[in-house]
Amino acid sequence: MSKNLTNRSEDYSKWYNELVVKADLAENSAVRGCMVIKPYGYAIWEKMQAELDRMFKETGHQNAYFPLFVPKSLFEAEEKNAEGFAKECAVVTHYRLQNDPDNEGKLRVDPEAKLEEELVVRPTSEAIIWNTYKGWIQSYRDLPILVNQWANVVRWEMRTRLFLRTAEFLWQEGHTAHATKAEAWEETKLINNVYANFAENFMAIPVIQGLKTESERFAGAEETMCIEALMQDGKALQAGTSHFLGQNFAKAFDVKFTNKEGKQDYVWATSWGVSTRLVGALIMTHSDDKGLVLPPSLAPNQVVIVPIYRNDEQLEKITHVANTIMSDLRGKGVSVKFDNRTTFRPGAKFAQHELQGVPLRIAIGPKDLENGTVELARRDTLTKEIVSLDTLTDTVEQLMTEIQETLFKKALDFRDAHITKVDTFDEFKTVLENKAGFILAHWDGTSETENKIKELTKATIRCIPIDNTVEEGKCVYSGNPSKQRVLFAKAY
Amino acid sequence: MSKNLTNRSEDYSKWYNELVVKADLAENSAVRGCMVIKPYGYAIWEKMQAELDRMFKETGHQNAYFPLFVPKSLFEAEEKNAEGFAKECAVVTHYRLQNDPDNEGKLRVDPEAKLEEELVVRPTSEAIIWNTYKGWIQSYRDLPILVNQWANVVRWEMRTRLFLRTAEFLWQEGHTAHATKAEAWEETKLINNVYANFAENFMAIPVIQGLKTESERFAGAEETMCIEALMQDGKALQAGTSHFLGQNFAKAFDVKFTNKEGKQDYVWATSWGVSTRLVGALIMTHSDDKGLVLPPSLAPNQVVIVPIYRNDEQLEKITHVANTIMSDLRGKGVSVKFDNRTTFRPGAKFAQHELQGVPLRIAIGPKDLENGTVELARRDTLTKEIVSLDTLTDTVEQLMTEIQETLFKKALDFRDAHITKVDTFDEFKTVLENKAGFILAHWDGTSETENKIKELTKATIRCIPIDNTVEEGKCVYSGNPSKQRVLFAKAY
Repeated sequence: MSKNLTNRSEDYSKWYNELVVKADLAENSAVRGCMVIKPYGYAIWEKMQAELDRMFKETGHQNAYFPLFVPKSLFEAEEKNAEGFAKECAVVTHYRLQNDPDNEGKLRVDPEAKLEEELVVRPTSEAIIWNTYKGWIQSYRDLPILVNQWANVVRWEMRTRLFLRTAEFLWQEGHTAHATKAEAWEETKLINNVYANFAENFMAIPVIQGLKTESERFAGAEETMCIEALMQDGKALQAGTSHFLGQNFAKAFDVKFTNKEGKQDYVWATSWGVSTRLVGALIMTHSDDKGLVLPPSLAPNQVVIVPIYRNDEQLEKITHVANTIMSDLRGKGVSVKFDNRTTFRPGAKFAQHELQGVPLRIAIGPKDLENGTVELARRDTLTKEIVSLDTLTDTVEQLMTEIQETLFKKALDFRDAHITKVDTFDEFKTVLENKAGFILAHWDGTSETENKIKELTKATIRCIPIDNTVEEGKCVYSGNPSKQRVLFAKAY
Repeated sequence: MSKNLTNRSEDYSKWYNELVVKADLAENSAVRGCMVIKPYGYAIWEKMQAELDRMFKETGHQNAYFPLFVPKSLFEAEEKNAEGFAKECAVVTHYRLQNDPDNEGKLRVDPEAKLEEELVVRPTSEAIIWNTYKGWIQSYRDLPILVNQWANVVRWEMRTRLFLRTAEFLWQEGHTAHATKAEAWEETKLINNVYANFAENFMAIPVIQGLKTESERFAGAEETMCIEALMQDGKALQAGTSHFLGQNFAKAFDVKFTNKEGKQDYVWATSWGVSTRLVGALIMTHSDDKGLVLPPSLAPNQVVIVPIYRNDEQLEKITHVANTIMSDLRGKGVSVKFDNRTTFRPGAKFAQHELQGVPLRIAIGPKDLENGTVELARRDTLTKEIVSLDTLTDTVEQLMTEIQETLFKKALDFRDAHITKVDTFDEFKTVLENKAGFILAHWDGTSETENKIKELTKATIRCIPIDNTVEEGKCVYSGNPSKQRVLFAKAY
């Protein structure tokens, strides 16, 4: 366990990279751009998975599993999708290694084991899935198909960062098929709502729902909905997307069905996903210069108990008290760990749990044994209080809710304080440079303007918020007429 | 839903292939040897995962995630392991596709995007994981590491069959690191026990625990423990393996630690896994000529309710009764589905649920409404009875246990009736040909004899059972002295 983190104010990016490694969440691997998710980081991802999976099933979805590989001919079938991902595809070309005759003890690709058709490691699964759906769908009776997959995908990104952008990442990808356009649209919106609820109520991350502009859309989608969050450094992070795919994939893979009127039509589609990137969003929304701060809903251990003792007799008594506390807390559904390791001193344990963001720490020492109390320390506020054993369980239970709410409120206040309406391009640039955050500005609706603004400021249109009101105005860059403000930001 | 399955007695292999597809468990994909696991099949795998994951965590293990790719130089570091898997490796050689100048609208591998070092798609993860553990382990204080990973792996098998042998499959792989040989051995045995308990108590599949012979061992292991099950056609199926890896991987990746005495030593290792192959074992152990038979513990729906009605008024009344039944059963932890689809007749629903192995079917018709009864049909015994609504919940709850036990007992009786002790090679061949199953015979302990027997009969040594008693005898093939019988069988 190494000592101090770089301060956020000093170097936010460095703070993030250090925190991920020091809090034992993940590390870089021997494979360029691919990470190892360590047990503590994976435990957080498992909690996200469990909750999302529950939400998907509650809304009628089932899980399935499709192949890791996409034959090149299928991959290229939907042109826009193929074009969007071709530049970052890992490609399997051979299926065997052999002893290298020029290099004893080493292996080489067996030139005779070349695949007839190359296999793309899935960067996303629309192609392989829609090729499969073709066999599943004949009639409206076979619809809707509401399927989700938990999987790994590979996008050969050049600049990678732990959790935020990795060559391989874990995600879920939903792929649904519908008889009507309206139904597919409802599904797109339903899932974006599921994502927004999950982010706000479970991860305590406030998000803005919106539509992507054409240039920010998923390759192959007619529309992309998204949830956008704001990190502590004023940069936006796209936390989830839900795509209305129209009939693009049905046409590319010739998936038709007989509707109720007996006529043939192409099937309507959606796809949607969130990934291990959410762990990055979690870290950057709540954590501080001391380390990770976790909302109770996502903490692998919600409470940790640290014994402070000078001899075995004291430890025995403390252990007895700790066992009672654990039993009571577990009865209330609170996860708790007794950190009775003998290889670390209390100070080192405190530092570790602070760094790893355990929401509540209970310390029990000899004085506490005499007084029937414990010391209760809150990670989010870094406050401590002495609590009687009689009221401890209730206090902890209440704090689980309170901490969750406090974190959300704090993030919401920060986010709301960092949405700025601007009406001139000078103001746009000034805000972006000094305060950053989201900027609400009029835009003329053209990709030219969007690209120009990006080129000049690095800010992109994060989304057209779904709760936008019509408001006549002039484009902040071109001065051309506009009917609504859109949300700009620099983004991860 | 298509009609009849091939009978098992007619063509067991064909029966299996048809059943997997017709019961909507899985199907072949566009990628050679890779399967699509359909929602119904995946729901069974999810139940296995949940129970295994619980058992791993209960025994102190944590989940983590390591990269899909293994750089060639790491892959070849442990020689035996590399040799064992080199012949069936999918290899990534490029990281980009580009428009094919010779073929408009098509893509090709970009020759300029060739990787400096090829990446092997993991066939198993010892190499990448031990290369990672090197950074995690310095002292005995860092041990043990008890990590499991849920992942996909790829082995480019030439002859594949749904679930039983596929080029890509899903599995869990545990990888543990220990300070002493004894502790690593205990772990190896502990996990093999976990697997045996899981197979017997959760999947209702009796298994024999044993040690593999040298030639059947995992490539890179010092010893391989296994659980072996017997399928209805008398062939054995290896259902799980737990490997004692000695210090082989620690030496290959130079993973040393300082022990309590302050001396440097190589770390001791185990690895262990079960895969989606277990779904194949499940099917082949319990199912019959009518379709799938599922033990209640693994059934996505334990009970299905089918309404039989002539008009809306009847349906409404039946729905009312069904809702009460569902609420009661769910209160008892029994999963239940009301199949009120209007697009299928009761007969078609009965056929589907029989084919898909739902343990209990409740039918409710107009007569039942009058009498306060339902018709309760048991999938495993294909028996029906009329049950009063008053006692239904209790009856169903009891049947959940009874069916689980009956299936295990039936499989155990079959298995035990198919273990034959033989003392001559003629007898060996006769039993193998006529009765099949497991054969307990003396073996002289040499690979030569083992290979010769395999060559002559296709039977292999499945394991040396761990509960073997010492028994002097003569090798069934060579006549040389032997001290114990080993378990032979033809195997999947």
